[in-house]
Amino acid sequence: MEATLEILLAAGAQLEMDEIEVGEKVYLSGNTSGIAREAWDVIRKNKIFLKSPITTPQGGGYKSLNVSTRKFLGLYANVRPCVSLHPFVKTKHPIMDLVIVRENEEDLYAGIEHQQTDEVVQCLKLISRPGCEKIVRYAFEYAKQQGRKKVTCFTKDNIMKQTDGLFHKVFDEIALEYPEIVNEHWIVDIGAAKLADTPEAFDVIVMANLYGDILSDVAAQITGSVGLAGSANIGEECAMFEAIHGSAPLIAGQNIANPSGLLHGAIMMLNHIGESLAAEKIHNAWLRTIEEGIHTADIYDAGTSKERVGTKEFARAVIANLGKLPTALKAVSYANSSALVLPKYKRKAAAKKELVGVDLFIHWTGASPDTLAELIQPLEKAQLKLSMITNRGIKVYPDGFKETFCTDHWRCRFKTNDGDLLTKNEIIELLTKSEELNIDIIKTENLYAFDGIAAYSLGQGQ
Amino acid sequence: MEATLEILLAAGAQLEMDEIEVGEKVYLSGNTSGIAREAWDVIRKNKIFLKSPITTPQGGGYKSLNVSTRKFLGLYANVRPCVSLHPFVKTKHPIMDLVIVRENEEDLYAGIEHQQTDEVVQCLKLISRPGCEKIVRYAFEYAKQQGRKKVTCFTKDNIMKQTDGLFHKVFDEIALEYPEIVNEHWIVDIGAAKLADTPEAFDVIVMANLYGDILSDVAAQITGSVGLAGSANIGEECAMFEAIHGSAPLIAGQNIANPSGLLHGAIMMLNHIGESLAAEKIHNAWLRTIEEGIHTADIYDAGTSKERVGTKEFARAVIANLGKLPTALKAVSYANSSALVLPKYKRKAAAKKELVGVDLFIHWTGASPDTLAELIQPLEKAQLKLSMITNRGIKVYPDGFKETFCTDHWRCRFKTNDGDLLTKNEIIELLTKSEELNIDIIKTENLYAFDGIAAYSLGQGQ
Repeated sequence: MEATLEILLAAGAQLEMDEIEVGEKVYLSGNTSGIAREAWDVIRKNKIFLKSPITTPQGGGYKSLNVSTRKFLGLYANVRPCVSLHPFVKTKHPIMDLVIVRENEEDLYAGIEHQQTDEVVQCLKLISRPGCEKIVRYAFEYAKQQGRKKVTCFTKDNIMKQTDGLFHKVFDEIALEYPEIVNEHWIVDIGAAKLADTPEAFDVIVMANLYGDILSDVAAQITGSVGLAGSANIGEECAMFEAIHGSAPLIAGQNIANPSGLLHGAIMMLNHIGESLAAEKIHNAWLRTIEEGIHTADIYDAGTSKERVGTKEFARAVIANLGKLPTALKAVSYANSSALVLPKYKRKAAAKKELVGVDLFIHWTGASPDTLAELIQPLEKAQLKLSMITNRGIKVYPDGFKETFCTDHWRCRFKTNDGDLLTKNEIIELLTKSEELNIDIIKTENLYAFDGIAAYSLGQGQ
Repeated sequence: MEATLEILLAAGAQLEMDEIEVGEKVYLSGNTSGIAREAWDVIRKNKIFLKSPITTPQGGGYKSLNVSTRKFLGLYANVRPCVSLHPFVKTKHPIMDLVIVRENEEDLYAGIEHQQTDEVVQCLKLISRPGCEKIVRYAFEYAKQQGRKKVTCFTKDNIMKQTDGLFHKVFDEIALEYPEIVNEHWIVDIGAAKLADTPEAFDVIVMANLYGDILSDVAAQITGSVGLAGSANIGEECAMFEAIHGSAPLIAGQNIANPSGLLHGAIMMLNHIGESLAAEKIHNAWLRTIEEGIHTADIYDAGTSKERVGTKEFARAVIANLGKLPTALKAVSYANSSALVLPKYKRKAAAKKELVGVDLFIHWTGASPDTLAELIQPLEKAQLKLSMITNRGIKVYPDGFKETFCTDHWRCRFKTNDGDLLTKNEIIELLTKSEELNIDIIKTENLYAFDGIAAYSLGQGQ
């Protein structure tokens, strides 16, 4: 942090700073969140947070401060530029200059997990329209501001037609507002393969949380210089900036570490707060220093490096280069990088929502789906029929295959006849009767139509 | 298919075959499953299925036959060897010889999706103990049979402690039974980055469905020869073998396509049914042919190839090489590749399951979590308290942050006092009272303890 701040101030960045202590010392003082209430207050007041890598102690119920900060402060956009520095830093991908914009709050990372049968555990993947709109709009606005030409979207909407389908749909909607920027969509598996093999094919890529987590690590790694990258976490009110690498307690304080990751986080911070002149000056001085072969131990290579330096010496070399441009690497220009002010999400008008059925999930240790169907058929009514049973999503009743492997976790779908609606009280009746019949219902999922369109998936094979 | 069968028969494989028509023609005849009932009967009788790439027509509600086959027949293991053929086929990763073993039936690919509020869509990720045991055991047995030294497991269990945690735990349990094989675990984002950059670090990698889908495509692609790879889909009773590439209707029947993908599927099939002599003979003849520079158009490179050939000529070259070994590439040996017969999953004894609370999910368009808490507090009883409200997983009540962005999808946790149990009838009471109060409950998730241990996640920030 010291080296980075020294460079920021030398570049003339206009900053007022408060320092707070978070992480290991706070954890070990008995605070499982790793941050004191007063420190939160400082962050919430200042709204901008430059964070050193911190260590979450293993075991003992310590919560990751990174995750908490993102979620509590609503930092929905994680932005990670991944750039090759060929030939000054070794890489198999000499032409690479892309930015991954990762949704940072929702998806499987909502962390909602339940075990309700002996054999099956569940995690909820939640994808929201505001979440999609905010991240996709951020990606396009960022591309526009940074003069980038293309935004690519990765989803798996051939399988997850509703969740990933929503992300893809919102991407297509918002892309229309940016006709000057090329847009494209890849199925995430093929897209990931292309990214890993031919990263030069991409510019800005926007993704839901899990895909973004995995693929931003892939992209950073294959630049050959994962330790040099910074990342921004942007919210509607607050923002946090950091190195993408984790902490390295073994070398801390020994004048060995490469300050470049945190410095790149700080450059993104300066752009975010409108100090783009200082950001540009520092980034170009840094590129010049890398070009000159003045390298810390982590990227030092006898063939390409000129001088092996410590943290402080590296910082001083960058400061000495302030005002100079790189000669071989491309200089950056942040002339147009004013703070990105995005409109807040506006709630849409509600659709007409109609209850048309319910999925009852049952813990049952029998083997034959037909037997289970017999057990629950007493729940049927004239207007409400058992339409199918699935096990791990695959239809096993009616007309199942004996080869289908079944766990103790069964989903029984009760649906009204087409056009008829269900009431909540009828669901309650189903539950009451199930209890009388000793059927172990562990969870429910209501089935709705929105504006007349069924908003739930069919069973596989249905 | 013709070229592949010609090679199999020339190698002396002992095979009886039935041919069935699946895919495009069947789809377009009006069968949305792409396969006739009689064709299913043949597959289920023969139990072994070698499948050409098929085309699922876009739109029109056609179901992917690939997905249905895997799920209906219980093909839980997808096995994909990814091998570099340097210097005969171009690649950035000259040393690469790994196998990805992907769970093929569960995870998010159960395809269970629901939209229950205007803003939020949900997909269930299901991970089961039998699913984990079967795939992990398959990976170790496969490694043992094929003389491989290490099995690596990728999960994201630092975030998904229960679902991915189960996968990791089962991996650790089963690894103990194979002391002669090295085992290791990587968090999937870091593991993916390592895989994409340094694939030579891996041998066999076992993963849940989604990670396996994405990363097997990455691994196949970076070998430089994605069109050459085959894959096996293994079940307890049946098995399907195929090329990993999709169909290419534009070049079908023109004597242009590379038959190697399907041929590699067929080689895995021969090993699976105990025809390992023929499998070894064909694989070595194929390696020899690749070495000789006899290449189809897709991998032809003026610098390294010697002769550009069509599908039939390539097949004939392989046949001519039957009995020969490669001289530069490493020859394969399948002497020990008898059919892999794994024990069927045995259900474990049930744990003591106790109901200790319920998560009620509410569609509510208000803004303040405190207001929502007031609305639902009448549901509380002496023994059953509202312990928290989360929005997309993050705790917003009590002691929420105003910066946390909230959608219309709220999870309200009602928990008994420590040590007290809840009854199903009390949940029904909660639902009944909610209905009276006009609270829109869209789904429920029961909270259980198994053998006294809470089997649900806390809220983030709780």
